Amino acid sequence: MGKMELVDSDGAKLSSALNRIARDIDAVFDVLLPVPDDTRAPLVEAMRYSAMDGGKRVRPLLVVATAEMLGVSRDPALRVGCAVEAIHVYSLIHDDLPCMDDDELRRGKATLHKAYDEATAVLAGDSLHALAFEILTDDETTPDPFTQAELVRTLAAASGMAGMAGGQMMDMAAESADYDLHTITRLQQLKTGALLAASVEMGAILAKIPREGRSHLRAYARDIGLAFQIADDLLDAEGDEEKAGKALRKDDEQGKQTFVTLMGVEGARNQARALVDHAVGHLGQYGEDAAVLRALARYIVERDR
Amino acid sequence: MGKMELVDSDGAKLSSALNRIARDIDAVFDVLLPVPDDTRAPLVEAMRYSAMDGGKRVRPLLVVATAEMLGVSRDPALRVGCAVEAIHVYSLIHDDLPCMDDDELRRGKATLHKAYDEATAVLAGDSLHALAFEILTDDETTPDPFTQAELVRTLAAASGMAGMAGGQMMDMAAESADYDLHTITRLQQLKTGALLAASVEMGAILAKIPREGRSHLRAYARDIGLAFQIADDLLDAEGDEEKAGKALRKDDEQGKQTFVTLMGVEGARNQARALVDHAVGHLGQYGEDAAVLRALARYIVERDR
Repeated sequence: MGKMELVDSDGAKLSSALNRIARDIDAVFDVLLPVPDDTRAPLVEAMRYSAMDGGKRVRPLLVVATAEMLGVSRDPALRVGCAVEAIHVYSLIHDDLPCMDDDELRRGKATLHKAYDEATAVLAGDSLHALAFEILTDDETTPDPFTQAELVRTLAAASGMAGMAGGQMMDMAAESADYDLHTITRLQQLKTGALLAASVEMGAILAKIPREGRSHLRAYARDIGLAFQIADDLLDAEGDEEKAGKALRKDDEQGKQTFVTLMGVEGARNQARALVDHAVGHLGQYGEDAAVLRALARYIVERDR
Repeated sequence: MGKMELVDSDGAKLSSALNRIARDIDAVFDVLLPVPDDTRAPLVEAMRYSAMDGGKRVRPLLVVATAEMLGVSRDPALRVGCAVEAIHVYSLIHDDLPCMDDDELRRGKATLHKAYDEATAVLAGDSLHALAFEILTDDETTPDPFTQAELVRTLAAASGMAGMAGGQMMDMAAESADYDLHTITRLQQLKTGALLAASVEMGAILAKIPREGRSHLRAYARDIGLAFQIADDLLDAEGDEEKAGKALRKDDEQGKQTFVTLMGVEGARNQARALVDHAVGHLGQYGEDAAVLRALARYIVERDR
């Protein structure tokens, strides 16, 4: 009975944590993005449209839950969470453009280039990209320059050509490249895993845990990153478009290899669950303090959006 | 005779400095952008296509000339120069996209989305954006975290919604907004001036000059930033497309107000020259050490590309 009870108690904590982080991240973006009284107003309104009032906020919650588990107070962690989310949102805006995935629906509303126009969407993405690094080097986030520099180093590496953008490029080549499981895993580690891992890492950096003390957390992040993408592939194959708030069945239409095409639905689901068990195992030393990170790992594979 | 000789001697120093910086920046980008042995290769090749072998390298020269004037060795300054240039190049790539200025020629060759495709151009721009912050927080640039953080803070502010991207948004609204001289000046201070000013500022940050000791350099940068844009407007109105390596006469076609439409050709030219005299005046305390910065200010208004 002990384990079931633990899962239920973790689940309640997660549900409350997800609601709270959604409110808090919106509140911080509201402060970070005041609309100026000049012709830049549509740019900042576009940034607010995409950054606020939407999304599961998984990355900010990874930052905040890791930081709080390690004794960091909530406000600086929320600002770092906004920096990671700004990078995530900019990548969604650019990925949705007609020349990329050409999507019309995101987080249950019109994509930015549909609600505004393409040029504003390109610029709003670029501005959110810069905003992330402005936040991380603001003394209000942390006055410690060593921490500021390490946060920037981690986020820039996770989002650039050796991380998210590189994975996106591999993904664009996927239609013609006929990837095997090894290459798909590598692609997803870059495209999705790098930023999820950076979120956990940045929570630990805020807590001034030295690099060598972060290996269990990195292992947790690596496992949930892969599980997250397998769950995304399962959602794409089997999910409900209305709940997901975006177009699905795209992998199949584009003839792309995914974890689901390579492993089958059951194989992929089993693999995701095994990865989550692994991930939770890496949190052993943190005991009850790791409740939210544990529940978040389980949520990542069970979610319907 | 003294003054003419000074200008000539400065001019020779500038010519040699421009040739040398062009070679050096290419060499650093060559090291920073090794082509990976996987399907990310086209992304990095696209980044190299746009970042290497082209451009006047005015921003890197501002970084390096300021840093060298203040006693910083060349290698770290070159890396910071590459970071600023990476931001400049990403902005050119995105500005050239069909949904923005829809340009086919840049630095005398096909724009990136013409040479590759739009999706690769969006991603290559984003990757150069991230690369800038990777460079600035690399211990090889400077091992001092305080300097790293201040460099990031300066570059992120100059490129985001309160800098370059904000100016670009104001520029997009210019066709319908019918700006006056005050607003055009503000627009250009953001769109072009902020990054030029940041270049000088970052050279001084590398030299660990505290903020209050950088006011003369900031004044120099502000003046040449505005002079640079007036010269660009003059080039657009009067220049030779072949020498410029890009399409001209665009402001007029789009019915935009510019310094030239608002002040006339002669008025704009006089204003640019007055700004350069002002800029050079701010360098007084640096004497002969400021030769390159002085000559660069004059070059900015006399250039034909």
